Amino acid sequence: MRFHGFFRSSSAYRCRIALGLKGLEPEFVPVNLRAKEHRSEAYLALNPQGLVPALETGEGVLFQSLAIIEWLEETHPEPPLLPGDALGRARVRGFAQIIACEVHPLQNLRVLNYLRASCGQDQEGCDLWCRHWIAEGLAACEAIAAAESHGGAFTFGARPGLADICLVPQMFSADRFGLDTGPYPRLRAIRDACEALPEFAAAHPARQSDAA
Amino acid sequence: MRFHGFFRSSSAYRCRIALGLKGLEPEFVPVNLRAKEHRSEAYLALNPQGLVPALETGEGVLFQSLAIIEWLEETHPEPPLLPGDALGRARVRGFAQIIACEVHPLQNLRVLNYLRASCGQDQEGCDLWCRHWIAEGLAACEAIAAAESHGGAFTFGARPGLADICLVPQMFSADRFGLDTGPYPRLRAIRDACEALPEFAAAHPARQSDAA
Repeated sequence: MRFHGFFRSSSAYRCRIALGLKGLEPEFVPVNLRAKEHRSEAYLALNPQGLVPALETGEGVLFQSLAIIEWLEETHPEPPLLPGDALGRARVRGFAQIIACEVHPLQNLRVLNYLRASCGQDQEGCDLWCRHWIAEGLAACEAIAAAESHGGAFTFGARPGLADICLVPQMFSADRFGLDTGPYPRLRAIRDACEALPEFAAAHPARQSDAA
Repeated sequence: MRFHGFFRSSSAYRCRIALGLKGLEPEFVPVNLRAKEHRSEAYLALNPQGLVPALETGEGVLFQSLAIIEWLEETHPEPPLLPGDALGRARVRGFAQIIACEVHPLQNLRVLNYLRASCGQDQEGCDLWCRHWIAEGLAACEAIAAAESHGGAFTFGARPGLADICLVPQMFSADRFGLDTGPYPRLRAIRDACEALPEFAAAHPARQSDAA
């Protein structure tokens, strides 16, 4: 397996955590988004969407972080990243998708570039934009996490899983954009519990070989 | 089952198609986004994220359209909306997530409201914004769909599934925001094949009881 990513991409960060929890160590191929390597002909031939991450498997190329993680779950079931029952899986996926489908898409590099170039926003305008959407999403996540912990250290109980895999990179972005995470004590506690695990620590952007 | 939605929401539209393909007819509860009913105390108690759709099942409330559709797939397996093999499922999910995680989040009502109120964008600025992101996403979808049809009328072959469920509402939004869909002939042909099916036709926004 070969994993194409960028150290600071939230969606690549998610996949690194999932790969680590599954005990997998694919070859890493850095794709420098700032140098626009994701728009190169070679990368577009691999992933027509021109975004990171992408995972080359023996059978074909996968893209989109949640699709990659579901594939990892199906092909490498241990340890499980989703609960064993359909309702539980739906609730974990719903939590993960609040981040992946509502928060993260609004704060990624191409969106901020467009806000600057075509909507007249300066750095402060972009930071306000990011903080607004992250705060809205984390408030929903905090309410859900407070109700779902089942006494465990992680979002949905005693084991880390898909929800935590999406939450930790999002909390990292919250810090990066200067959001006060004080209003989310449960999410902060989950983040701290996750970062104490070697698989989460090893996936941190600052520990990647392509970190600036 | 009770389904909470809004006629024009793309993610509610996706769920309506999936429910129809599965032969399910839950009670429909309209949530008027323009009247801010999704921010009411009663709705937030049901879905702390305060977005549509939400599905009340006998066991609990589900939110996020892709999580709802995966739950439908697991609890009502026939007809399948995903392929039988892990790689195939990952590729269909990846296609669906290009729309659900990259395109649609940028064009929904709350984002356009923020662009108007806080970024000084007028209607034309908002329409340009939407067309930009939809065009970028559909270009990737067209490249993938052209390679994946396997001779069938739908995105991934002879049967409609999760990819088509996400594509058709996105094509509806493309028209609504005035995007020329001429550059996406394969996607247009898939959309037409889908709309000829009664389950897709019945799910169209214009045919909902809460349509303005």
